[in-house]
Amino acid sequence: MQVPSPSMREAASMYGTAVAVFLVILVAALQSSAPPESPFPYRISLDPEGSLELSWNISYTQETVYFQLLVQELKAGVLFGMSDRGELENADLVVLWTDGDNAYCGDAWSDQWGQIHLDSQQDYQLLQAQRTPEGLCLLFKRPFDTCDPKDYLIEDGTVHLVYGILEEPFGSLEAINTSALQTGLQRVQLLKPNISVPALPSDMHSMEIHTPDILIPSQKTTYWCYITELPDGFSRHHIVMYEPIVTKGNEALVHHMEVFQCTAQFESFPQFSGPCDSKMKPDHLNYCRHVLAAWALGAKAFYYPEEAGLAFGGPGSSRYLRLEVHYHNPLKIQGRRDSSGIRLHYTATLRRFDAGIMELGLVYTPVMAIPPQETAFVLTGYCTDKCTQLALPPSGIHIFASQLHTHLTGRKVVTMLARDGREREVVNRDDHYSPHFQEIRMLKKIVSVHPGDVLITSCTYNTGDRKLATVGGFGILEEMCVNYVHYYPQTQLELCKSAVDPGFLQKYFHLVNRFNEEEVCTCPQASVPKQFASVPWNSFSRDVLRALYGFAPISMHCNKSSAVRFQGEWNRQPLPEIISKLEEPTPRCPASRVQSPTRPTVVSIGGSKS
Amino acid sequence: MQVPSPSMREAASMYGTAVAVFLVILVAALQSSAPPESPFPYRISLDPEGSLELSWNISYTQETVYFQLLVQELKAGVLFGMSDRGELENADLVVLWTDGDNAYCGDAWSDQWGQIHLDSQQDYQLLQAQRTPEGLCLLFKRPFDTCDPKDYLIEDGTVHLVYGILEEPFGSLEAINTSALQTGLQRVQLLKPNISVPALPSDMHSMEIHTPDILIPSQKTTYWCYITELPDGFSRHHIVMYEPIVTKGNEALVHHMEVFQCTAQFESFPQFSGPCDSKMKPDHLNYCRHVLAAWALGAKAFYYPEEAGLAFGGPGSSRYLRLEVHYHNPLKIQGRRDSSGIRLHYTATLRRFDAGIMELGLVYTPVMAIPPQETAFVLTGYCTDKCTQLALPPSGIHIFASQLHTHLTGRKVVTMLARDGREREVVNRDDHYSPHFQEIRMLKKIVSVHPGDVLITSCTYNTGDRKLATVGGFGILEEMCVNYVHYYPQTQLELCKSAVDPGFLQKYFHLVNRFNEEEVCTCPQASVPKQFASVPWNSFSRDVLRALYGFAPISMHCNKSSAVRFQGEWNRQPLPEIISKLEEPTPRCPASRVQSPTRPTVVSIGGSKS
Repeated sequence: MQVPSPSMREAASMYGTAVAVFLVILVAALQSSAPPESPFPYRISLDPEGSLELSWNISYTQETVYFQLLVQELKAGVLFGMSDRGELENADLVVLWTDGDNAYCGDAWSDQWGQIHLDSQQDYQLLQAQRTPEGLCLLFKRPFDTCDPKDYLIEDGTVHLVYGILEEPFGSLEAINTSALQTGLQRVQLLKPNISVPALPSDMHSMEIHTPDILIPSQKTTYWCYITELPDGFSRHHIVMYEPIVTKGNEALVHHMEVFQCTAQFESFPQFSGPCDSKMKPDHLNYCRHVLAAWALGAKAFYYPEEAGLAFGGPGSSRYLRLEVHYHNPLKIQGRRDSSGIRLHYTATLRRFDAGIMELGLVYTPVMAIPPQETAFVLTGYCTDKCTQLALPPSGIHIFASQLHTHLTGRKVVTMLARDGREREVVNRDDHYSPHFQEIRMLKKIVSVHPGDVLITSCTYNTGDRKLATVGGFGILEEMCVNYVHYYPQTQLELCKSAVDPGFLQKYFHLVNRFNEEEVCTCPQASVPKQFASVPWNSFSRDVLRALYGFAPISMHCNKSSAVRFQGEWNRQPLPEIISKLEEPTPRCPASRVQSPTRPTVVSIGGSKS
Repeated sequence: MQVPSPSMREAASMYGTAVAVFLVILVAALQSSAPPESPFPYRISLDPEGSLELSWNISYTQETVYFQLLVQELKAGVLFGMSDRGELENADLVVLWTDGDNAYCGDAWSDQWGQIHLDSQQDYQLLQAQRTPEGLCLLFKRPFDTCDPKDYLIEDGTVHLVYGILEEPFGSLEAINTSALQTGLQRVQLLKPNISVPALPSDMHSMEIHTPDILIPSQKTTYWCYITELPDGFSRHHIVMYEPIVTKGNEALVHHMEVFQCTAQFESFPQFSGPCDSKMKPDHLNYCRHVLAAWALGAKAFYYPEEAGLAFGGPGSSRYLRLEVHYHNPLKIQGRRDSSGIRLHYTATLRRFDAGIMELGLVYTPVMAIPPQETAFVLTGYCTDKCTQLALPPSGIHIFASQLHTHLTGRKVVTMLARDGREREVVNRDDHYSPHFQEIRMLKKIVSVHPGDVLITSCTYNTGDRKLATVGGFGILEEMCVNYVHYYPQTQLELCKSAVDPGFLQKYFHLVNRFNEEEVCTCPQASVPKQFASVPWNSFSRDVLRALYGFAPISMHCNKSSAVRFQGEWNRQPLPEIISKLEEPTPRCPASRVQSPTRPTVVSIGGSKS
């Protein structure tokens, strides 16, 4: 694709010389410890052109990830690694480079200026480097936790992978600065749950919901909307599995896809296939919001647990479906046709339980706001004991999957289950959450929620680039804090969310006014967003807002459907009290004190007795 | 002293057999690395009876403390170590024990229940165990930082040493629980500064200020007050050094001693020698508060820097001195006579600079308060740029020693120097501060303070055992946050302290009232302590008080003497703004990334070329 400059040609040729001796190295380690079955079940393209392909597998017993990086057209080297949010600075890297004579591979890291340094502890362990017909294939492994407090810790949830292409030789690793390279990032859930595939029914059918051979727009971001419909008279079925269909060659462009069912309140929906923000788009499409299936880059097939399925079809449900495909085309590639979508596998033999989707977190209301210039402001939404007591069956519900959701400033999301005032279990946590990567994730372990339990969803926001407060709401510049949990058996409870009591927020505006001796509009006709916009943000107004959210009573939405509340008093509810936090998991690193003790020294007491 | 029970006798005898072979062990390590000169310049008794004597020395190049523990009458073993605040739980220990047959020595630790476990990483390294005429002498060393995050880190400031006596053999280390032993604690500054002794003048004289052969009361705590006077016509001199005089045999009883000069406002003071809280004590003694010398357990002689001395005598100063000796007699030993005190060394040849003492921190006022049930509440007092600009000479002042002071709930104290909004240097820090151990400490490095600099003194309090707010004030149940800094050249600035603006505190009471819908007395006639006493303490009132102290303007005391302020506006001053914090010291532990890099792997890329 690119014509190398003379110096690059030279470099590539020198490098070619260096790699001329074909020698399989270091395979012993691999042969003894690689996981047995399908060696690399997960695969993604790192770059938009698909020239860097990463496959991986996880050994949970070894707490190690095995990577296979296929470099299609090797120039003078490549770097791969992980960082907190996909930046090339402060990244943990493995680098393959040449000085023109030899090729080297090493575990490295980049400092805050993007400068690369060799790591003294080599945690990316190279197992094999091999030429294949497809390109150079590098095989290496990396423990989840290298026990170096400065190294990247591979955790559940999103991992930001980074890569860089070396186009010329470098005299040393230290001569490389990532800011001068062609680099990029890719988000994946590296630690896929290790759950066995549930048995599928013998009478399973499938249906493909895919775009009708469209031309991918040559723009960076496109959300494509396509309306399709279920066959006439399609009876009630259970979706038991779905999987992505990605048109071959477009793997690097298809970012995520969702299938929504439209509301039954309209008899029919118009045909449509085009960008979701098109002016031609029928307004009705906003009524197609009930999620049937969701896929994002790096995700594989989604299986419902054997005892449950997602109901669709039949009386009382709409025949109309909306497919939404997010194309991410940063290189603005032109002329690419696409028929990607999702294949739904369903059965007419209904399973024991209907699966349901419940919304946890914060109500979409401006009373929950984040001051500007905060790097890690936390908002928390509650599903209270009172609501679960009323709405959940005595035997409880079982959450098996979760999709976290915020708008642009979200950085972390976690939902915690508490019982009797004690944190018991993490439902789902993503400490490297990105609003650009929202997939439905299977939980490693099903979480059972019983009547009287509390579900606490906390989102951490970064408003470092905002000038005004960011309030809660539907707008892309407003914020949300939501965890869509997938569970069974389905209940009437669709929404269990909270927000601060509006009266207490007004007391806040009053005291901010009083303390700052400035004009904060507390007049009843001013909207809450306007009131927040006029708050003078200083340490006191920030701290007190944080204290307010940690203290003031809440208004609960304990709803059957988006409008109908369960019966009861839901305003001015006390904040759930947490008397004990969940303990941090025991460290996986060798801390002297937790290892088995060594032998004591036997002492012979010497000297002269007086 | 104690008659051992039959089983103890037996044990001791078995132990005697075990140690019958006199053999010097492990001396090689010691001989190669022990510091050269006077091997153990620092010494204290660990127990009140003086049967466990600890001597130590510090190698700053090796970052290691060398200990010599002399056990006068060994029973079945001994344990020694360090813990956060002198508790026997969660302590880092070295244990010498016997199972009846052999004697063992090992690095161990106690868990939160006091149960002892052997440490897999042996950081207390035994160098020698030797019988001497005085007892069993154990020689060992311990790095400041073992790099085990769970181990005790030996820092500047107070270290709580703990000990325990094993009276019988134990089958294993794990069989020992500290709660069943005779144990105790002793506070010392382990890391004494490594400063050379300044030259002393040839015309130096000395004067002993000591108790007049008194009988130490057989009660746990006694503060003894003794009034003495300087010779008639004693002219202006400079104290250049002082040292403790501790009556032989009473080393474990004399806890700390201070010599104060009385105020010149009274012509004479009555004679007195007795407990300071005696009803017979003349009221006048309250006017003897100007510190001339202070000593606490474990401290050695105090030397003024060569260019400075503390002025006393001469016109305008009182001839009367008050000696205060704190006897700590937990075993209520009777009949012990004592003539301990301090020997002042002084010269008539005045040195270039008068030394001065300046008070930093918080004003003694109830507006600064700590809510009850807080485990680490921080209050901060400021010496602002405006005050140092006005009061310090252009060439600045040089702080060479510091005495930290709080009342009973103080747990940490630190004074930070800031310039241009940036923290620059720690003046003094004690993260294991104890109100029961307040000594004047030489700084490891003289800190120069220039006009325009800011000095920030923060105290951390634990009010876990209090029911009501603890307000600032003079009472022992009220709190203080003070750093008495010793410096030269002396200036008129005696006091540079702050407190929150009282008007903003009233706004706080008002908003607490408003938020809690409870009765908080905000009427002007109620005193601040009464207002604090009526605050309903919940997360909001706590957080907002913390936010208030971090935001509200301050009232400055920038005073020449306790009553006279420097000219200027000192009310409603802005809080000094700190835009950059001092970076944590670079870790002394081997973190892979900061070590010199290893060599990269040379790669030969193998496989079959297609």
